Amino acid sequence: MVLREMSATGERPISLDVALVHYPVLNRQGDVIASAITNLDLHDLARLVCTFGIARCYIVTPLKDQQALAGRLLNHWLEGVGKELHADRAFALRHLHVVDSIASAEHDIALRLGIRPKVWATTARNEDGWLPIEQARKVLKESPDAYLLLFGTGWGLAPSLLAEADAVLQPIQGHDVYNHLSVRCAAAILLDRLLHGQA
Amino acid sequence: MVLREMSATGERPISLDVALVHYPVLNRQGDVIASAITNLDLHDLARLVCTFGIARCYIVTPLKDQQALAGRLLNHWLEGVGKELHADRAFALRHLHVVDSIASAEHDIALRLGIRPKVWATTARNEDGWLPIEQARKVLKESPDAYLLLFGTGWGLAPSLLAEADAVLQPIQGHDVYNHLSVRCAAAILLDRLLHGQA
Repeated sequence: MVLREMSATGERPISLDVALVHYPVLNRQGDVIASAITNLDLHDLARLVCTFGIARCYIVTPLKDQQALAGRLLNHWLEGVGKELHADRAFALRHLHVVDSIASAEHDIALRLGIRPKVWATTARNEDGWLPIEQARKVLKESPDAYLLLFGTGWGLAPSLLAEADAVLQPIQGHDVYNHLSVRCAAAILLDRLLHGQA
Repeated sequence: MVLREMSATGERPISLDVALVHYPVLNRQGDVIASAITNLDLHDLARLVCTFGIARCYIVTPLKDQQALAGRLLNHWLEGVGKELHADRAFALRHLHVVDSIASAEHDIALRLGIRPKVWATTARNEDGWLPIEQARKVLKESPDAYLLLFGTGWGLAPSLLAEADAVLQPIQGHDVYNHLSVRCAAAILLDRLLHGQA
């Protein structure tokens, strides 16, 4: 977040950016794929990060036609008729940045903040050793580091991303065994738990 | 929620159902309209209420063609090929019930639970006298009543619904003045704040 520069409270501000990952993610069969960008994900994530004062949501896809699609969608709202009709939407969508890889997002953060982010992955599965959300909230509050939080589309982030991440956050647990939130709703709840009242 | 019947802990369980309202809601110009049902809202809300152990999400629309559309969408997943491919989705979508009015939803709850629910409205605007979310959480935990929580599509619930509701919940406040979450993300955050760890 740009909160680092914006804060005038003397409290340590939180530096967290978000990435919506379309590759590498899993499909229903567990194959690693590049998922399709959807218009609604872009809008929902933009509005969400904007609500929580997060500077950027990276839209990660290596597919050139998907990057072009995202570009056209954004252009409609940022420069086209959508901008006139719906200024709030344009404001939110300016937080989205299309990149070809997570490494590119990390590089952009390093350029912006002068610090390479730690990468946190998210998943709907739970395993030993994964970071409790309450603890992650505390780390964000107390750490001087920058963080990049990855959300997976499709059937979730590829195992390689979980293995490479600096931490994997524990999933949002449902009331009982059911645990299949949409990425939009999961991101909303997770960002609220991580940031509400402390950014 | 059916938690009332399910609970065996001795603690007072919470009875909360949800309604996704397509009429009466506002459009961008502030006119009262009936909004269109969208496939994704149905999926996201079904998965969300399922995650939080909520018995029913009422899909409110008086428009017969929209009721038929919702019926076709649900039928695809509950009875058609979707059921085979995606059993989790069918499980979640069974929590949706299409009704023609909020009164019909209240009536259904009264039939199910033997008690007419109190109606809580939600909104993105803040006004004096609206119920803080933390306080609403406490009421849910301590009250023997049933509650129906209304979420508005389009540009939000019509003013008449806010005026008639037993309470209006304070909106989710963003980091600064921006306050334009999608109904999907707003519902996710609000249900998490109301129910996480206490249902």
